[in-house]
Amino acid sequence: MIQRLAIVGVGLLGGSVAKAARAQGLARQIVGIGRDAARLRPALEDGCLDEATAGLGQGLLGADFVVLAAPVQTIEDLLPPVSEAVGGETLVTDVGSTKGGIVQTAERLARGRSFQFVGSHPMTGSEQAGYAAARADLFHGATVIVTPTDQTDVRALKGVTAFWEALGTERVRVLDPVTHDRLVAAISHLPHLVAYALVAAVMRVEPGALEFAARGFRDTTRLAGSDPRVWREIFLANRAALSGSLAAFREALRELETLIDTGDVAALEGLLGRIKAQAEELR
Amino acid sequence: MIQRLAIVGVGLLGGSVAKAARAQGLARQIVGIGRDAARLRPALEDGCLDEATAGLGQGLLGADFVVLAAPVQTIEDLLPPVSEAVGGETLVTDVGSTKGGIVQTAERLARGRSFQFVGSHPMTGSEQAGYAAARADLFHGATVIVTPTDQTDVRALKGVTAFWEALGTERVRVLDPVTHDRLVAAISHLPHLVAYALVAAVMRVEPGALEFAARGFRDTTRLAGSDPRVWREIFLANRAALSGSLAAFREALRELETLIDTGDVAALEGLLGRIKAQAEELR
Repeated sequence: MIQRLAIVGVGLLGGSVAKAARAQGLARQIVGIGRDAARLRPALEDGCLDEATAGLGQGLLGADFVVLAAPVQTIEDLLPPVSEAVGGETLVTDVGSTKGGIVQTAERLARGRSFQFVGSHPMTGSEQAGYAAARADLFHGATVIVTPTDQTDVRALKGVTAFWEALGTERVRVLDPVTHDRLVAAISHLPHLVAYALVAAVMRVEPGALEFAARGFRDTTRLAGSDPRVWREIFLANRAALSGSLAAFREALRELETLIDTGDVAALEGLLGRIKAQAEELR
Repeated sequence: MIQRLAIVGVGLLGGSVAKAARAQGLARQIVGIGRDAARLRPALEDGCLDEATAGLGQGLLGADFVVLAAPVQTIEDLLPPVSEAVGGETLVTDVGSTKGGIVQTAERLARGRSFQFVGSHPMTGSEQAGYAAARADLFHGATVIVTPTDQTDVRALKGVTAFWEALGTERVRVLDPVTHDRLVAAISHLPHLVAYALVAAVMRVEPGALEFAARGFRDTTRLAGSDPRVWREIFLANRAALSGSLAAFREALRELETLIDTGDVAALEGLLGRIKAQAEELR
C-alpha cells in the first residue's frame, strides 16, 4: 500500500496512472502535480486526485512513490529537483518513451545522495493526449518495460514492478536502457516518423486525394495525430537509435522499389509473401 | 433490375458484390465465374450465387451486367475474351485498384466492336482476402471512383453508377484513369508499400522488438497483411505513379530527419503540428 502517490503531469498517462491506482485502491492518497493547477481540476472532481498543486516541493512532500509523466525532456529536467525533494526511501519512476538520457541523469544524481529511480515505459497509449483521454484500464493487458542498471537497488526494482502489475499490466519486462531505446526506435518511433511523412507526402503531391482516403490510409497514418511536443522530444532524445532504424527502413523500401522497377514479378511476390507472414504473427 | 449478373472472381470484392446484390434484390440471377468452380461452393450454399462455373463463355452467356473482380493484371487479360463473349448491350465494369492499363485495353477492344466498359474502383476493402471475408455491407458508406473516357457511352456510365449506388455506396465520383492512378498511388499504394517496408525493416534490424509492438505498430503495418499476388500486380501496374508518390514521401521523410539531426526544436515541432492538423482532417 502506497501512502502518498505523487504524479507529476496528469495527462493521458499520468491521468491513467491516477485512475488505475484509485480503481485498484493502490494508494491512500494521490496527489497530482502540474504547472497549471487549474488544469488538474477535472481529475480532482473525478475523485482520482485527493490533492492538486503546481508546487513540486509541496506535492512531493511525504510521497513514498513518485511517477514522472511528462514529455521525455521534461522528465530529464525534473530529475534534479525531484531527487532533492524526495527522501532516500521514496521510489521514483517515469513513463518516458526513451530511457537512455533519463536513466543516465538519474544515475548521476544517485551518486551524490540516495535516490531510488527505476525507469519505466508502458507500451501503451494513444495518439490522443491529455487527461480527457486517460482511462483506468489503459495498462490492462499492456507490457511495461523497466530499465534498471547495475546501480539499481533490487528492492526498488521489485517495488516499481509490483506497482505496474497492480495497475493491471500483463507483464513487466526488464531491458537495459540502450537496448530499450533501440527496440522502441524500430517499433514505435520509426512508425510515428513514417506516419508523419506519409501525411506530409500526400499533402504535398496529391492534396485532393485525401477526400478519397479509406480506412487503410487512416490506420496507416493514425500516429500522425500524435502530440507534436511529445514527439519532437522523443525524436530528438532518441535520434541515434532512430537513425539506425530509419536506415533499415530506407533499405527495405529501396529493395521493394527495385523489384517493382525491374518488374521482377516472382521475387516481388515472394518478398511480399514473406513480409505478410511476419506481419501476421503480430495479429 | 439486372436479369443476369455475372461476377468473374468471387473473392473479397466479387463476393461482396454478390452478397450486396442479393441482399438488395438487384439481379434476377447471379452467376459466379472462377477458375476453380469447387471454390465457389460456399457462395452457392450461402444463396449468393444461383450458378457457379469455371467456364467464362458459359457464365457470361446472356449476362446483361458483368463485374470483373480479379487482380488487376488478370482483369486486363480477361478483357479480350469477355469483350468477345458479351453482347453489345451488356454493361461491363471491374473493381481494379489501377485503371490506366485496364481502361486503355478496354478502349482498344471497343474500337472493333460494341463493348460497353466503364472502369470502377470501390475505395473499400480489407487486408483480408477471399470469399470468407466478403460482406454484404462492404460498400456501405464507401466511395466508388468510376473512370469513363470520351469514348464512353453516357448510358453505360449511368448504368454502372446506378449499380454501385444500389449496392449501398455513399457516392460515386468520376475521375479520368490517369488522375485516378495518381491519387490512389498516393493514398493507397504508397501506404501499402510503406507498411510492407516497415515490417521488413523491423524484422531486419530488431526482430526481437516485435513482441513489444503495441497497437500503434499494428495499425501502421496492418496493410502489410494484404494479399501478395494482388499487390504485386497493383505495384507493377501503377509503378510510374507510385514512383512519383514515393519520391514525395522520401522528401518528406528527409525533411523530418534533417530537423531531427540538426536538433531544430522549433521547426520540428512546427512541422509535426502542421502535419497533425492535416491528419486530423481525415478523422
